[in-house]
Amino acid sequence: MSATAASRGSDSPGGPRGYRPVPGLAELGDGRITYAERMMPLLAALRSRFSADRPFDGLTVAACLHVTAETAVFLRALRAGGATIRLAASNPLSTQDDIAAALAADDGVEVFAKSGVDRDAYYEHIALAIGAGTDDGAGGWQGPDLVLDDGGDLMSTLHTIAPPAVLDRVRGGCEGTTTGVLRLRRMAADGTLGFPVVAASDTPVTRIVDNTHGTAQSVIDGLLRASGVLLAGKTVVVAGFGACGSGIAESARALGARVVITEVDAVRALDAVLRGFQVLPIADAAPIGEIFITATGSAEVITAEHLAVMPDGAILANAGHFDVEIDVRALVTMAVAVETDVRPHADAYHLPDGRRLLLLAEGRVVNLVAADGHPPQVMDLAFGIEALTLARLASAEQRLAPGVHQVPGDIDADAARLVLTALGARLDTLTEAQRAYLANWHLGS
Amino acid sequence: MSATAASRGSDSPGGPRGYRPVPGLAELGDGRITYAERMMPLLAALRSRFSADRPFDGLTVAACLHVTAETAVFLRALRAGGATIRLAASNPLSTQDDIAAALAADDGVEVFAKSGVDRDAYYEHIALAIGAGTDDGAGGWQGPDLVLDDGGDLMSTLHTIAPPAVLDRVRGGCEGTTTGVLRLRRMAADGTLGFPVVAASDTPVTRIVDNTHGTAQSVIDGLLRASGVLLAGKTVVVAGFGACGSGIAESARALGARVVITEVDAVRALDAVLRGFQVLPIADAAPIGEIFITATGSAEVITAEHLAVMPDGAILANAGHFDVEIDVRALVTMAVAVETDVRPHADAYHLPDGRRLLLLAEGRVVNLVAADGHPPQVMDLAFGIEALTLARLASAEQRLAPGVHQVPGDIDADAARLVLTALGARLDTLTEAQRAYLANWHLGS
Amino acid sequence: MSATAASRGSDSPGGPRGYRPVPGLAELGDGRITYAERMMPLLAALRSRFSADRPFDGLTVAACLHVTAETAVFLRALRAGGATIRLAASNPLSTQDDIAAALAADDGVEVFAKSGVDRDAYYEHIALAIGAGTDDGAGGWQGPDLVLDDGGDLMSTLHTIAPPAVLDRVRGGCEGTTTGVLRLRRMAADGTLGFPVVAASDTPVTRIVDNTHGTAQSVIDGLLRASGVLLAGKTVVVAGFGACGSGIAESARALGARVVITEVDAVRALDAVLRGFQVLPIADAAPIGEIFITATGSAEVITAEHLAVMPDGAILANAGHFDVEIDVRALVTMAVAVETDVRPHADAYHLPDGRRLLLLAEGRVVNLVAADGHPPQVMDLAFGIEALTLARLASAEQRLAPGVHQVPGDIDADAARLVLTALGARLDTLTEAQRAYLANWHLGS
Amino acid sequence: MSATAASRGSDSPGGPRGYRPVPGLAELGDGRITYAERMMPLLAALRSRFSADRPFDGLTVAACLHVTAETAVFLRALRAGGATIRLAASNPLSTQDDIAAALAADDGVEVFAKSGVDRDAYYEHIALAIGAGTDDGAGGWQGPDLVLDDGGDLMSTLHTIAPPAVLDRVRGGCEGTTTGVLRLRRMAADGTLGFPVVAASDTPVTRIVDNTHGTAQSVIDGLLRASGVLLAGKTVVVAGFGACGSGIAESARALGARVVITEVDAVRALDAVLRGFQVLPIADAAPIGEIFITATGSAEVITAEHLAVMPDGAILANAGHFDVEIDVRALVTMAVAVETDVRPHADAYHLPDGRRLLLLAEGRVVNLVAADGHPPQVMDLAFGIEALTLARLASAEQRLAPGVHQVPGDIDADAARLVLTALGARLDTLTEAQRAYLANWHLGS
Repeated sequence: MSATAASRGSDSPGGPRGYRPVPGLAELGDGRITYAERMMPLLAALRSRFSADRPFDGLTVAACLHVTAETAVFLRALRAGGATIRLAASNPLSTQDDIAAALAADDGVEVFAKSGVDRDAYYEHIALAIGAGTDDGAGGWQGPDLVLDDGGDLMSTLHTIAPPAVLDRVRGGCEGTTTGVLRLRRMAADGTLGFPVVAASDTPVTRIVDNTHGTAQSVIDGLLRASGVLLAGKTVVVAGFGACGSGIAESARALGARVVITEVDAVRALDAVLRGFQVLPIADAAPIGEIFITATGSAEVITAEHLAVMPDGAILANAGHFDVEIDVRALVTMAVAVETDVRPHADAYHLPDGRRLLLLAEGRVVNLVAADGHPPQVMDLAFGIEALTLARLASAEQRLAPGVHQVPGDIDADAARLVLTALGARLDTLTEAQRAYLANWHLGS
Repeated sequence: MSATAASRGSDSPGGPRGYRPVPGLAELGDGRITYAERMMPLLAALRSRFSADRPFDGLTVAACLHVTAETAVFLRALRAGGATIRLAASNPLSTQDDIAAALAADDGVEVFAKSGVDRDAYYEHIALAIGAGTDDGAGGWQGPDLVLDDGGDLMSTLHTIAPPAVLDRVRGGCEGTTTGVLRLRRMAADGTLGFPVVAASDTPVTRIVDNTHGTAQSVIDGLLRASGVLLAGKTVVVAGFGACGSGIAESARALGARVVITEVDAVRALDAVLRGFQVLPIADAAPIGEIFITATGSAEVITAEHLAVMPDGAILANAGHFDVEIDVRALVTMAVAVETDVRPHADAYHLPDGRRLLLLAEGRVVNLVAADGHPPQVMDLAFGIEALTLARLASAEQRLAPGVHQVPGDIDADAARLVLTALGARLDTLTEAQRAYLANWHLGS
Repeated sequence: MSATAASRGSDSPGGPRGYRPVPGLAELGDGRITYAERMMPLLAALRSRFSADRPFDGLTVAACLHVTAETAVFLRALRAGGATIRLAASNPLSTQDDIAAALAADDGVEVFAKSGVDRDAYYEHIALAIGAGTDDGAGGWQGPDLVLDDGGDLMSTLHTIAPPAVLDRVRGGCEGTTTGVLRLRRMAADGTLGFPVVAASDTPVTRIVDNTHGTAQSVIDGLLRASGVLLAGKTVVVAGFGACGSGIAESARALGARVVITEVDAVRALDAVLRGFQVLPIADAAPIGEIFITATGSAEVITAEHLAVMPDGAILANAGHFDVEIDVRALVTMAVAVETDVRPHADAYHLPDGRRLLLLAEGRVVNLVAADGHPPQVMDLAFGIEALTLARLASAEQRLAPGVHQVPGDIDADAARLVLTALGARLDTLTEAQRAYLANWHLGS
Repeated sequence: MSATAASRGSDSPGGPRGYRPVPGLAELGDGRITYAERMMPLLAALRSRFSADRPFDGLTVAACLHVTAETAVFLRALRAGGATIRLAASNPLSTQDDIAAALAADDGVEVFAKSGVDRDAYYEHIALAIGAGTDDGAGGWQGPDLVLDDGGDLMSTLHTIAPPAVLDRVRGGCEGTTTGVLRLRRMAADGTLGFPVVAASDTPVTRIVDNTHGTAQSVIDGLLRASGVLLAGKTVVVAGFGACGSGIAESARALGARVVITEVDAVRALDAVLRGFQVLPIADAAPIGEIFITATGSAEVITAEHLAVMPDGAILANAGHFDVEIDVRALVTMAVAVETDVRPHADAYHLPDGRRLLLLAEGRVVNLVAADGHPPQVMDLAFGIEALTLARLASAEQRLAPGVHQVPGDIDADAARLVLTALGARLDTLTEAQRAYLANWHLGS
C-alpha cells in the first residue's frame, strides 16, 4: 500500500530510505507479538470489542511510540477497530526491527522506524507519520484524525509543520508520559494547542496498578538483581512516601527490612507513621541506613552531606524518573576510586576514609535499568486506557475543547472492570434499592 | 457570669430550668478533662499556640456538641485563644453532667446541657446557645461570631429563628458530621445558607487517621468484644473497600483471617485484587463467609437472599454509619427464635432450618456500640482541625463566601505536622535547590 | 445415680453437703452448653466419633476442671464415648452453678462443685471425685480408670490419700497446665508418680493455635479494651519474642504500631531482626516506648530503672502467665498518687516528676483480666487433644510407663485435621510415588 | 610451598597437571575476595577472633568446597586461626580460577582446582586434598586433622582410600549439604564412619536465615527475573508450607498475590490456615492457579493430571532442591511444541488444546538457576557456623564420638549474636534475679 513504509520496503528496493527487508524478520516479530498478547488481557478484550464496534472505521491514527511487542498489541487492537495507522518510533534505540517488520506486513499500517537511525531520520519519520508530503486530493496533507504520542515530539512537530487544515482535522490525541503532558500543558497555557489531548499517564487506576504495585515490585526486583543483598534485617531508607515510595516501603518491610521514611509533606509523613514506619529527616537517616531508595520526584535528595555520614557498604538506588535524586556528581568528586560493575549495574565508590558506597544503575531509575521495567500487565493497562480514550475521541458527539484533559472516570472504571475479569474477580452491581438510597443521600451534594 | 447556665446554676436555684448543682461534680469532671488532655496532644499544642496568638479575643463561639471530656479539651483550647463560649448538647443522651459542670465553672463558658432532657429542652438549649433572648444593647441578640455544629441542628435553628443581623455577624462555622454537611449543602443549594461553613469531617488527614486506622481498629475491637471469635483461620467477608473497608480488611487479614471483598466500584475492587484479596459478589460470598462486616455507606447490602445461604454460626456486623446495611428486619422475619445477648451486644437468630446467625450490635455501627468508638487520638485530630479552621475563620481578611467549603490544605497539613511531632516523627524541609527544581518542573501545569 | 452429687441434689435435700437445686438452673446451663458446642467443632466431631467407637465403655474418669460451658462440652464428648465421670471444680471461683446443674442432670456424671465453697470443701470435692469413701465391693475404693487435671491438685491428692490398688487401676491421665506439668515432673523425678500422665498443654498444634494466634489476638483485645489507645503510629515495646511475643509483635505492627523487641536469646532476636523489627535492650527501649507489653515467661523484666525513664503517658501491660514481669511494687513505691480505674482495668500512677504511667490489669495477664481470655476455639483444641489422648490411654495395648509424656504426634495431627475440616481447608495426601521417594530419601536417617 | 598446587603452578610449568598461571589472575581474585568479605560480617568477626585465639595452630584442614569468593573468605578466616589448608573443588563447573589463584598465592593454602576439569581430575584433586601421596615422615600420609565437605565426596574418598592411621588422626569434620549428611548417616548406620561429623546444614539459625528469609527472597527474585510477571492480583499456589514454602507464601502475598497452599501435613496446613491462607488439594488448586511454586522436598507434586487442568498461561517454578517436584517429562510428553527461552530461563509448552504453560528453569531450583542463589549473608552464616564448629572440633577435650552430630546450640547462638551485632541489634542479658527465677521455675523439668 505504501511506498514509504520504512520497514516493509520489499517492493521498494532503493526506495527513498532504502531499508531492505530482512527475510523472516516479520515472522519473528509476529510470533513475539502473539506471545505478548497473551500477557495483555485488557488489550485482548478490547481487540475483541473493537472488532464488533469498529470505532475507528475510516479514521487514521498517527502514532509515535516505542516500537515493541506491547505497542504492536496495542496497535493491532486499534486496527481491529478499523483504524489506519502510521507509526514512527519514539526512540530509535528502543525500536525492535522484527516488530516493525511484522507490523508493516499489515497493509493498514505504515511503519517509519528503524533501530539506531540518526536524529534527522527520527524527525523525518515523525513527519511521515503525520502525513507530511502526502496529498489528500485537495491540495493538502492526508493528516491524521487521531494522534498518539509518547513524549510530545509528534504533537510538537505536528503543530510546527502542519498546515492549519491538518490540525483542524485532528479529533484529539493521547499522551502517555508525564514529560509529554508537561509540554502540552505549556502549549495549552500559551494558547497554541490546536486540539484536545488526554493525559493518559495518570489516572486513579494507573496510580494503583503502575505506581504502587508495578513500580514497587520492579524496584525491589532491580535492587535485588543489582546488589544481591538480603533485605531481611537491613535498615532501608525510602525517601518519599507517595504512591511509589509507599509501595516500595511496604514491599521492603514485607521482605524483612526495617524501613525508615523521609518526607517533606506532612500528610504523607503522617500516613507513613500510622502505618508503623519511622519517619526521620534524611540527615538523621543517613548514618543508620544500609540501603537508600529515592522516590520523591524531587532533586538532590541525597547529597554530599548525607554521603559523608553513611555507613560503609551502604547501597544507593534511585526509583524516581530522573537521575537527579542522588547527587552522583558529588559522589564522583568525593571518591578516590571507583570500581565499576562489581555486579551488573553496581559501582563501588571508595571514599577517602575507607568507606565504600555502592551506587546502582548510576543513579538512574533502577527498575528500568537493572530490571525489566514495567511488567506487561502495566503496559496492558496503560495502552488499554489509551485505546478506550481514543475510541471516545473518535466519536464526534463527545468532541472536547482544545486543551489537556484527564481520562474520563468511566473509561478508567471500564478498564478496571476488564482487568478484574481477566484476574478472575467479580463485581457486585448496585440494586435498585441501593441506587435509590444513594441518590436520596447525596441529593443536593 | 450567666444566670442561664444550665449546669452551673448554683446561683439560680429554682431558676428558669432549675438544675441543681451536684456537689463535687465539677471537680470530678475537671479531673477527667485534665486526664483526656493528656491523650490529645494536638489540642494541647493548639491550646499553647492560641494562648500566645489569641485568635478569638473578643469573639463568641456558639457550639452544639456532645458534652464529653474530649469536647471540653477542645473548648478549653478555644478559651485559651480568647473565645467566649456558649455550649448546647448535640445529644442529651451523651451529655456527661460532670463535664458540663466543670466547663460551666469557667466564667467564659455558658453550658446549656443536662443529660436526659426532653426534645423541648434540647431545642431551648440550642436557642440559648445562639443567644436567643439576649440583648446586645442595640435591641438585638448577642449572636455568635463563630459557630460549631455536630449534626446541623444549631445551624438550622440559627437560620430559622435568628434575626438577619445575627446571621450577618457570623464569620463562619464548622460542621463535624457527614449528615450535617449534607443538610448544609442543601441549604447552600437553596440559597439560604447565610455564612460560610467548613465541612471538617472529611480531609485527607481525617481520612487517613479516622477512616483507615481509627475505624479499622475500633471495628476489630468491637467485633472481638461482641463475638469472642478467633479471627485466625476464619473467612471474613468485608463488604466495601473504601477507606474504612480496606482498613478493616487489612487488619482482619493481619490477625489471620482469609478475607473476601465485595464491591460495586471497579477501581476499588481492582485495588483490593492487587492487594491480594479475593473479590466476589455478595451472593457468592454469602455461602462461604463465617464473619460478615459491612462498610459500604450504602443500604441493604446483606439481604434475605444472602441470609438464606450463610453457614450456621455466621457472624454479622455493620461498620457503616447507619443501620441500613444489614437487613435486620428480614432477619427478624426469617427467625423462629431470637436469643438476645448470648454475649453482650450479640443476638442469636434461629432460622427454621436449624442455622443460627449471630447479629452484633443489632446491626448498628459495631465500633461505637460494642467498643469505645473513636479513640481519643481521632477526636484530638478532628477537633484540632476544627480549632484551626475556626481560627482561620476568625481572621477578617480570610472571610469566605457563604457556602460549604473544604478545610484548606495548609490547615490539614498544619494539623498533621503537630500530630507528627507528638508521635516523635520528624519531617524534612525542601531545600532551595529542590524548590527551584520543582518550580521549574511544574511551570505551566 | 449418686446421692453425693453436689449440684444435683434434687433427690437429696439435706444430703451430706446440703446443696439445694435452683429450679431451672440445669435448663439454663444446658442451653449454654449447647451454645458453646457450636463454637467447638473439634469436640463436636469427637463426640460423634466417640459415639461410634465407644473408647471409654465401662471406664470411669475422675476430673478436676473449671466448671464452665466449654468443660461441659468436653465431658459430654467423653460421655458419648461411654465414660462415667466424676467431676470436681479446679477453682471454686470459676464454677458456674448452672453448668454444674446441667452436667449433674446426666446419670453418668457426678458433679462435686459449687461456686464459692471454701478450701475444705474444695479438697473434699476432689476426694469424692477420685472415689474416696466409695466401695468397690472388694473392700477398696471405686477409683478412676483415667484422670483429668488442671493444675495438679487432683493427681496430688490421689497420690496422697488413695490406697495403692486405686493408683494401680489408673491407666493414665492428662494435665492441662504448665504449672501442673511442673508438679508432675517433680513427682516423676522423685519416683513417686504412679501412672503415666500426658502433658497436654504444649504440643506443636497448641503452640500455633494458642500461643501465636490465640494469645496475640486476646492480648491486643485486652490492651485496646483497657487503654482505648490507637495503636497506629505508636511505638510499642514487646519484651520477649517467643511464640506469644512474636504473635503480639506482628499483630501490633499490622495495626500500625512501630514495634521494638527486647530479647535475651540470640536466635529469637535474630528471628525478630530478620522480620524487620528493631531489637534493643530494655534499658534503651524504655525511654522511647509508648506502650510496653511483657511476654517473656521470666521475672522483673520492667523494673524501677526502666520505669524511671519512660515517657509520660506510657502504658504497661503484661501478657505473661504470672504477674512478675512488671515490677508493680516498684511502681507503687515510686508513685506519689494512684488513680485507680481511670478506665476499667487501668490505673494511672503519678510519679514525682509529673509523669503518669498507666498500668493495665494490675500487671496481671492482660488478656485474661481485661479481655475474655482464650477464645472458645482455643479451648476446643486444648480439650480435643485431651480427649484424643484419653482415648489413647484407655486402650490397653498402648499402656505407657509411669512418667510425664508428650502428646503423641499423630494425636496432634489428628486434632489438626479435624480443625482444618471445620475451617473448610482440605489436605493433600501422599501418593504412592511420593511415599516411595521419601522413604528412599530418608533411608538410614 | 607445593609443587602440586594446581592453580598456582607458577613454579611448575609443565608440572604434573600442567596448569599455567594467568598473569594477574591472583590479583583479580584477591580483589573479589576482599570485596566479598565486606558482605560477610560474621566471617570478618571470626577472622578477627581466630587471629587472637589461634584455634587451628598446627592443624591441617582438608576441604572440598565450591571455589568461590565466599569460600575464600571462609578459608581466610581459618587461616587467620592458624590452619594449613588443602582445598579441592566440590564442582569443577563452579570453580572460579581467579579465586583459586588468589588463594594459592598464600603459602599456607594448597589449591587443587581448575574450572572445567574432567571426572578423573576431580577425584585426583580430592585425593591430593586429603594428602594422598604425601609423606608424614613415618611412612604414612600427612592426613588432615579436620575436614570440610560439601556433598560428601571428600569424606567418602577419605574412607575409601586413606590408611586407618589417617582416619584416626581426623578430629572431626563438617558437612554443609543435606545430601552429604544423608550419605554420612548411611555410613554411620553401617558402622563405617571413622570420625565425628557435624551436620552444619540445618540449625535453628540456618532455618530462619536461609530457609525462611534467604530462600523466600531468592525464589521471588528468580520468579520475577524469569517470568516478568506482576505478582499483584495473581493467584499463586505454593505447594508445601515448611520453612521455605511459608516464607515464599508470605512474600508473594506481601507483593499482592492471593496465595493458595497445598499440604500433606496437618500441622503445617493448620499453620497456613491460621495465617489466613486458603488450603486446598493440588488437584483443586490446579485449575485456579496462575503461578505454581513447589517447595515440598517431595517428588511428583505437579503431575500430568494437574497440568491437564491448569489455565492458559500458567507459570510453573520449582523451589525444591531437586528437579523432581514438577513432572517435566509429563509436560514434554503432553506438549505439541516447546518454545525455549521465551525469556531467559522460561520455556513455553504448547498443549494440544491451545493452552500454553510456562516452565521456569526447566523445573530445576529456580532461585539458583534464574537468580543468584543464596545471598552472601546466607553463605556468611553457613560458613560462620562451620568455622565455629571446626574450632570446637579442634579442641581436644571436646572430642566427639564417630557419628553424625548436630551443631551445638551454643555455637548456633554464638553465630546469631555476631550477626545481630553486624545488623546493629542489641540483646538484653539475664539479670541475676531472672536467672534465679528461671532456675527455680524449671527445677525438676
